[in-house]
Amino acid sequence: MAMKSAASSAIRSLLSSSSSTFSRNLHAPAERKKIVGVFYKGGEYAKLNPNFVGCVEGALGIREWLESLGHQYIVTDDKEGPNSELDKHLHDAHIIISTPFHPAYVTAERIKKAKNLELLLTAGIGSDHVDLKAAAAAGLTVAEVTGSNVVSVAEDELLRILVLVRNFLPGYHQAVNGEWNVAGIAHRAYDLEGKTIGTVGAGRIGKLLLQRLKPFNCNLLYYDRLRMNPELEKEIGAKFEEELDAMLPKCDVIVINMPLTEQTRGLFDKNRIAKCKKGVVIVNNARGAIMDTQAIADACTSGHVAGYGGDVWPVQPAPKDHPWRFMPNHAMTPHISGTTIDAQLRYAAGVKDMLDRHFRGEDFPEQNYIVKEGQLASQYR
Amino acid sequence: MAMKSAASSAIRSLLSSSSSTFSRNLHAPAERKKIVGVFYKGGEYAKLNPNFVGCVEGALGIREWLESLGHQYIVTDDKEGPNSELDKHLHDAHIIISTPFHPAYVTAERIKKAKNLELLLTAGIGSDHVDLKAAAAAGLTVAEVTGSNVVSVAEDELLRILVLVRNFLPGYHQAVNGEWNVAGIAHRAYDLEGKTIGTVGAGRIGKLLLQRLKPFNCNLLYYDRLRMNPELEKEIGAKFEEELDAMLPKCDVIVINMPLTEQTRGLFDKNRIAKCKKGVVIVNNARGAIMDTQAIADACTSGHVAGYGGDVWPVQPAPKDHPWRFMPNHAMTPHISGTTIDAQLRYAAGVKDMLDRHFRGEDFPEQNYIVKEGQLASQYR
Repeated sequence: MAMKSAASSAIRSLLSSSSSTFSRNLHAPAERKKIVGVFYKGGEYAKLNPNFVGCVEGALGIREWLESLGHQYIVTDDKEGPNSELDKHLHDAHIIISTPFHPAYVTAERIKKAKNLELLLTAGIGSDHVDLKAAAAAGLTVAEVTGSNVVSVAEDELLRILVLVRNFLPGYHQAVNGEWNVAGIAHRAYDLEGKTIGTVGAGRIGKLLLQRLKPFNCNLLYYDRLRMNPELEKEIGAKFEEELDAMLPKCDVIVINMPLTEQTRGLFDKNRIAKCKKGVVIVNNARGAIMDTQAIADACTSGHVAGYGGDVWPVQPAPKDHPWRFMPNHAMTPHISGTTIDAQLRYAAGVKDMLDRHFRGEDFPEQNYIVKEGQLASQYR
Repeated sequence: MAMKSAASSAIRSLLSSSSSTFSRNLHAPAERKKIVGVFYKGGEYAKLNPNFVGCVEGALGIREWLESLGHQYIVTDDKEGPNSELDKHLHDAHIIISTPFHPAYVTAERIKKAKNLELLLTAGIGSDHVDLKAAAAAGLTVAEVTGSNVVSVAEDELLRILVLVRNFLPGYHQAVNGEWNVAGIAHRAYDLEGKTIGTVGAGRIGKLLLQRLKPFNCNLLYYDRLRMNPELEKEIGAKFEEELDAMLPKCDVIVINMPLTEQTRGLFDKNRIAKCKKGVVIVNNARGAIMDTQAIADACTSGHVAGYGGDVWPVQPAPKDHPWRFMPNHAMTPHISGTTIDAQLRYAAGVKDMLDRHFRGEDFPEQNYIVKEGQLASQYR
């Protein structure tokens, strides 16, 4: 693939920056660590792309490096229940690495069992698969590769907005099924131009989405705890909304760009969805549990929500009978937006960098911390 | 739908501008014309949206107006063969209106039969369904609603680029089919950021696409007969390529944005596709016949083309057994990108405006002409 070579040069530059580190560590006195990585299985796809480092087989491309330093590196996708491969290694693991795409749920119970645990790393962004309070109480550090896949997720959000607003999928189905019925698509297909789009949360991903939306000539709104500085707001071209419930009825499209916290869990319940415009499109690549599952399915069925798209589900993998798989006018996928080949190369490099710093007793980049030696980062308090 | 009301206000403002025209014409001496409109059938969808004016039932929303002026307005979707409704009315039709989405093929033979024909209008953009040489020889005028759906098509091109580069469809299929296999998607999913995108043709649609791509931080190239002026080129951020065959091997993504002419028919044959990078993504919302059908299907099957997406087919409706319906990694739909509700409202208003000018013996906006009283516009010569 053409894309392969473009991505390749990216990883070469990322990896070359740590090769000097590598040789320094070879001569450093090493404390042997047991590191457990929980990733999705590559299977038949593992060998199709040399840059596919995010799967079990790819193991973030750091096995050789870790083993050369004398560390033990266990990698698995088996993460559920007390007989899982993850649980077998909990008692003496020092470090657990996981991803939002196939999350190792690090519960209070698991933290209690993991007597040697020091560090929980998320290869990607979003550490809500970890019981952060329990991790903090145990004095652990939880960190993620902030920024590693924000572009990937923002691009994917715009993709899902376009898929739903322009009613792409019924047309695709017609093409595949030998049909031709333009009316069946066109009667509910719209341009994005001129529509009102509101993002709930305008952190890194929200801002990148707004920047990409700017040339579409939409009416852009954002709700956030913090207002952007006036220059940035002007550059991005989005209007600040102080009240979520005041913004929602104005929006033709609503995009969720906030972390899952105790405050945001179930935020979009039946009542809040009812406050949205009839015919709204909702895109949520943040976390599935920000939505009330059944309320979304019901609103898609009634038509109050004209389309719902996202790659996040309340539990992952999503069960076979999850209602979001069957509701009308959805654009759902497994959790993939942040694990493009480009994103994998970035978060693999970020994890390697944090491991390297950890082994040497150095701090991580400040923005990567979710819990730092038992202290929760401010947005999770 | 939320979108309905946004689109509604658009048509209200468009229609109000012609109401004074309407009352003037009521008192003008009227020559009765027979107008035949060929559109796609709305069927069960016709009544679902009051702004769905592009279908047979919607009839561009101009029936009442035409009939109040004393004209006869026949509307049908039956367009193929000598017994079609279209052919029945050919002998005394003055004006034929059709669309690229369900085109009335106005051949030399049909033009010969249509003794009263004066005017051929395309509701939309692209008049290659008309034998332009024959129309010119017969002294006819052919015109389209230039600009009416350029935004719609450009948005759709970006949609298809994202769908293919980010490998959206296999993920959607997994969601629907009760599956969860992130690797099956991620091993060939890429960010758009950092990739090289070339447009073959940078007219109105090509420029709108480039403008929308700008915030994605891609490497943008364009090939065209004419170079943009330096300020516009700088604003759009795309680099001019003098030679098509020199641009193609540089591109991760190629987008076709040129009309179908004698020069562009079959332009992307086996040899030209071989000049593209292995793993290229091609998006073509221009015209299907710019491609060699089998060469595209073969290249998708071999993997030389990693994805092909578009809404145009060599003949429309596309036959049930067209190879593009079955080839791997496609993002095909029926011809829909230029017939969103917003686009329909714009091209309906544009057709009404040209009819009104025709009845009053006034010229159309210059850029709308394809053939003006027997003279081909320059790009079709």
